[in-house]
Amino acid sequence: MLSRFNLNVPKRMSKAEETRKFIIQKSAPIFNKKGYGSTSLSDIQEATKLTKGAIYGNFSDKSELAVSTYEYSFALILDRITEEIKKTATAKEALLAYIHYYVTNWQTVFKIGGCPMLNAAVEADDHLLFLRDTVRRSFRVFIGLLQGIIIKGKVNGEFNANVNPAEYAALIHSVVEGNILLAKIMDDPEYFHIAANHIDRIIDQQLT
Amino acid sequence: MLSRFNLNVPKRMSKAEETRKFIIQKSAPIFNKKGYGSTSLSDIQEATKLTKGAIYGNFSDKSELAVSTYEYSFALILDRITEEIKKTATAKEALLAYIHYYVTNWQTVFKIGGCPMLNAAVEADDHLLFLRDTVRRSFRVFIGLLQGIIIKGKVNGEFNANVNPAEYAALIHSVVEGNILLAKIMDDPEYFHIAANHIDRIIDQQLT
Repeated sequence: MLSRFNLNVPKRMSKAEETRKFIIQKSAPIFNKKGYGSTSLSDIQEATKLTKGAIYGNFSDKSELAVSTYEYSFALILDRITEEIKKTATAKEALLAYIHYYVTNWQTVFKIGGCPMLNAAVEADDHLLFLRDTVRRSFRVFIGLLQGIIIKGKVNGEFNANVNPAEYAALIHSVVEGNILLAKIMDDPEYFHIAANHIDRIIDQQLT
Repeated sequence: MLSRFNLNVPKRMSKAEETRKFIIQKSAPIFNKKGYGSTSLSDIQEATKLTKGAIYGNFSDKSELAVSTYEYSFALILDRITEEIKKTATAKEALLAYIHYYVTNWQTVFKIGGCPMLNAAVEADDHLLFLRDTVRRSFRVFIGLLQGIIIKGKVNGEFNANVNPAEYAALIHSVVEGNILLAKIMDDPEYFHIAANHIDRIIDQQLT
């Protein structure tokens, strides 16, 4: 499933693939900030300095561009957090790496408009139904990543055998997303510290 | 501060006030589902069966209608949850009343597009800046409500004296919002149970 969101690209891209990637990269922060519904073709044209024809030569319509851009934005954040997880030695450290990414990099994340999962989910649940399956899949992938860490912690004896991995993966994901929401609207990174301390306590009091 | 979001209306409304309220009530679920950016004047016209002139006779522009409608939607959810809180006898029950509202009423909440705070915050943080102060104020009011319950619990000896009310109010709010996000995009009310169990554990293990 992860391969759908794989950022790795072949070493040599065709001109068309390069243009497609360029459009996606330029569109990503715009869709993430303005929303997939409110971003217009002229926003994309302004960011890419490309004509309407050049954009629609690479994407059949705005929906296809929106879905591809969401997949790119999700793959990017998944990649960054997976990298942080890889650096850790224990399951506890691996679970904490997720929120620590935001504690450390909140400015970069704020600059591109916050968490792509949070932003897209709010639009895809009731309104932009063409985006819903892709967003759902990304949530499953992400919760699956956290679940895998918890299972590993149970197998290596770090976490209790009776811990429900699906429940705690969802819980940690919701604590992080809920605090991104608060940090973002209140413009206050302190919420990331609240979330980090809380996840630390969840691990110590309920998982180990 | 709560008075800004007061739902109570004078017993006799003028015709203009009635029309204004009618437009807001009809617009609320549309803005909440489609987003404040993506909802068009024709969406509002279709829902109200009113002409453009009749709508803009009551609101100076779409932004004023959007802000008024958000205030209405927030007041409504604040009112419902405050009602549930009033029925409780202890600070623990009062804190749990918030998530229990979603455990019981998720279908009603889903039908109108989910939590107005969550939906509006995602749009107001980077994009719809005219809405940002109003949304921020509503978050402060809501977190203040939870904070008040925690302070009451400290005063009556139910909660530990060293508990930080602001921290736990924000935490409980973020757990609920994070799980509304998951429940809504995955269309799975089970996340409300996960959140309720977790808040119950937070109270037992960290507040009492």
